[in-house]
Amino acid sequence: HQRTEDMEDAWQDDEYFGNYGTLRLHLEMLSDKPRTETYRQVILSNSAALREKVVLDLGCGTGVISLFCALLAKPAGVYAVEASSMAEHTEELVKQNGCDGVVTVFQERAENLTLPTKVDVLVSEWMGNCLLFEYMLESVLLARDRWLKKGGMMWPSSACLTIVPCQAFSDYRQKVEFWENPYGLNFSYLQSLAQKEFLSKPKFSHHLQPEDCLSTPADVITLDMVTIQVSDLERLKGEFTFTVEKSGMFHGFTVWFSAHFQSLEDGPSIELNTGPYSEITHWKQTLFMLDAPVSVEEGDIIAGSIRLQRNPIWRRHLSITFLWNINSTEVSTVKTKCFPMWR
Amino acid sequence: HQRTEDMEDAWQDDEYFGNYGTLRLHLEMLSDKPRTETYRQVILSNSAALREKVVLDLGCGTGVISLFCALLAKPAGVYAVEASSMAEHTEELVKQNGCDGVVTVFQERAENLTLPTKVDVLVSEWMGNCLLFEYMLESVLLARDRWLKKGGMMWPSSACLTIVPCQAFSDYRQKVEFWENPYGLNFSYLQSLAQKEFLSKPKFSHHLQPEDCLSTPADVITLDMVTIQVSDLERLKGEFTFTVEKSGMFHGFTVWFSAHFQSLEDGPSIELNTGPYSEITHWKQTLFMLDAPVSVEEGDIIAGSIRLQRNPIWRRHLSITFLWNINSTEVSTVKTKCFPMWR
Ligand SMILES: [Ca+2]
Ligand SMILES: [Ca+2]
Repeated sequence: HQRTEDMEDAWQDDEYFGNYGTLRLHLEMLSDKPRTETYRQVILSNSAALREKVVLDLGCGTGVISLFCALLAKPAGVYAVEASSMAEHTEELVKQNGCDGVVTVFQERAENLTLPTKVDVLVSEWMGNCLLFEYMLESVLLARDRWLKKGGMMWPSSACLTIVPCQAFSDYRQKVEFWENPYGLNFSYLQSLAQKEFLSKPKFSHHLQPEDCLSTPADVITLDMVTIQVSDLERLKGEFTFTVEKSGMFHGFTVWFSAHFQSLEDGPSIELNTGPYSEITHWKQTLFMLDAPVSVEEGDIIAGSIRLQRNPIWRRHLSITFLWNINSTEVSTVKTKCFPMWR
Repeated sequence: HQRTEDMEDAWQDDEYFGNYGTLRLHLEMLSDKPRTETYRQVILSNSAALREKVVLDLGCGTGVISLFCALLAKPAGVYAVEASSMAEHTEELVKQNGCDGVVTVFQERAENLTLPTKVDVLVSEWMGNCLLFEYMLESVLLARDRWLKKGGMMWPSSACLTIVPCQAFSDYRQKVEFWENPYGLNFSYLQSLAQKEFLSKPKFSHHLQPEDCLSTPADVITLDMVTIQVSDLERLKGEFTFTVEKSGMFHGFTVWFSAHFQSLEDGPSIELNTGPYSEITHWKQTLFMLDAPVSVEEGDIIAGSIRLQRNPIWRRHLSITFLWNINSTEVSTVKTKCFPMWR
């Protein structure tokens, strides 16, 4: 995994790691209780099994997961790895919390990492919008292949991408219908422009209301964190068949993810679900709007596929393509829309 | 008003006008009902007096104010001036609304503008955060000096900057106190960093609740749009003496503005108020937080001054300095804090 000078730019590493050098994103992540409490719960409920284990916390940020390990369990050691300049503060936080005997901070990128030993557990919060955005997962898999003992534990152990066809009346009204007749003026000429500007990319930070789900959400892609390979990330595909459960307006698809943490012994696994039926997280959900809404009836079938294509140049970006058909299996009636995210 | 190459950069015109070439900001402004309805109301309530007048609408955007003039009054002509590429669409919108006999669109910057005639009324929505941010007002004053007939009307006719000492418990809690003990960890070491990162610049888009005002707001600076000169904008100063009306926590100052539209005849003037006692606008309010909150009692006096200093290099930016004293007129007890916005 050697990057050329040009490739460095394409990874936008300066911008990416620069963002993690200030507190803003760390505050957002730490303030996200469902996220942070899930990791805390994973450590706590595995505390007995973590005894004398070596843990790698990749992309540790302020070190919160490493500190949970040190304070809630008795691991042999925790390697807290953070590439951004936040690492300097992390070291101090480890000391302030009396954990410097257990936690060692490494300011290093995954691909250049050298650790004293292999590890029993690799824990990381690598998930981005639509699970993959920013592809921190690649760094996690590199670290796994080099530093995780055979049979070691990955946390999360698996992750799912989930989608649902949905209504989004207020988004459509505010962004497209708005131009029809604001203040008595005919601005409908701007609607095609608005559609292009506002609907061609996904909307991050969408908060889907359960009543706007037109069907039961479906897991379309599942990643097994032990077996998945970096090359698998180039192109991921999933299929869906939704039965519309209540008549309404099909404005688009909403996408989110869940992450699953297997128990080190035989306890139940723990789930972090970022969907509309769970407490809202800082990821919220991601909305992909059709160019024009379609009225659907109870019993209608929306079937098709979703494809996540990693950008061959801008390696932290991808495009997401939906194909779908309503009450039809004819190729001639298939609709498709491709959303860059962001390039 | 000749800008050198270097000065062009310092105005960041490409970024500034580029932002107005897409729909996003125009949608935000048009969706702001108190703002847009005020301009509509100004035109409507002056419709008789606007008969046969020539109107200049500077920075017309989608042309909404020009269209109000053409549709609600019978002006001799409206010059709709827009520097960004939005102007091309504005021309089409004027046609679609059947106003191309009255409204002429000019895609031009104020400083390069050539109009067929002088104008009776110069209307513009130039107000930014803390009234002055981005200094579009300079362009308006240039256009006024060249194109407004002697005795012509400026809309707005005057504008006020208003401030109030306030509570901001939730901002302080979420950004500074948060680090004290999140998830049982001692992160207080990060508090000084958080203070620096989160409190050294103002918070745009603050929504001040009336109950968080510690005193009655005060107008500290008033601009008369007929007499003010570009050079006056370099440095504006206002003084205040607030009597605390209920005990509470003094977290900082909140700033907003109002704009006043004089009647062409002798009707009442119309006000657009962006403060906490009016319907929320897209400007919301701007919060300036002290480094550390101060507990205050009913009857306490908070006296001092506010200074808006335009950046000599980055001409769309300014710094805002507060000086204040609590229950004292001693120079030795004066506190001060300077907020760059953004440079
Ligand atoms: Ca993340
Ligand atoms: Ca403005």
